[in-house]
Amino acid sequence: MAKDRGDHNEQACKQVDGEMTRVFELFGKRWTGLIVAVLTEQGAYFADLRRAIPGISERMLSDRLTELATAGLVVREVDAGPPLRVAYRLTDAGKAMEPALKELSRWAENHLPSGGKGCPEQFRG
Amino acid sequence: MAKDRGDHNEQACKQVDGEMTRVFELFGKRWTGLIVAVLTEQGAYFADLRRAIPGISERMLSDRLTELATAGLVVREVDAGPPLRVAYRLTDAGKAMEPALKELSRWAENHLPSGGKGCPEQFRG
Repeated sequence: MAKDRGDHNEQACKQVDGEMTRVFELFGKRWTGLIVAVLTEQGAYFADLRRAIPGISERMLSDRLTELATAGLVVREVDAGPPLRVAYRLTDAGKAMEPALKELSRWAENHLPSGGKGCPEQFRG
Repeated sequence: MAKDRGDHNEQACKQVDGEMTRVFELFGKRWTGLIVAVLTEQGAYFADLRRAIPGISERMLSDRLTELATAGLVVREVDAGPPLRVAYRLTDAGKAMEPALKELSRWAENHLPSGGKGCPEQFRG
């Protein structure tokens, strides 16, 4: 990130930097971050992912997985079965997000009060 | 985050954890992350923020700032002027996001190729 310039008026390209823009083009969409967070723990079948993310629709999950695959964060693997199932896992680029997700999680623990919507404490890993 | 359970089928509340859910309820919306990233550098007037984030509309910026204020990350301060202007800055909770944003930025630098949409290199801070 750019250094503090201590001046509200300096005009030389005071735009948000390219890395942040790229991060939030991807993660500034509903569900994307949660999908990566679930896959950080382990690979998952499509149905597992739906179950792990309350409220996500099949269509949304499918669209987000496609975007994540296009960005090179997720790979799709077909399990010949039977039953034929599609599994998803993170690529090395996806796995490399773990430290950032941990920082975000730590931050939320300290600074975003729980609205009681998460997983009940006794079930947490 | 929960530990790897090494088992696709374990069912005991395999839901994404509460912290991640809270983070992405807020940041899984277009623009929110970029607004915080800009304010991490310094406080800014509304017009500065619009200029810093190419493509954001007045309405979107206003809505997102309201959400960030409600979440306790941003405060709004009226500069009596003239001209009367409204400035925004991060609270301590907002400032505490900096390590997470830095991790995300580092990650993007290494793993999200630039599409050439960011600030031209010669202007970066």
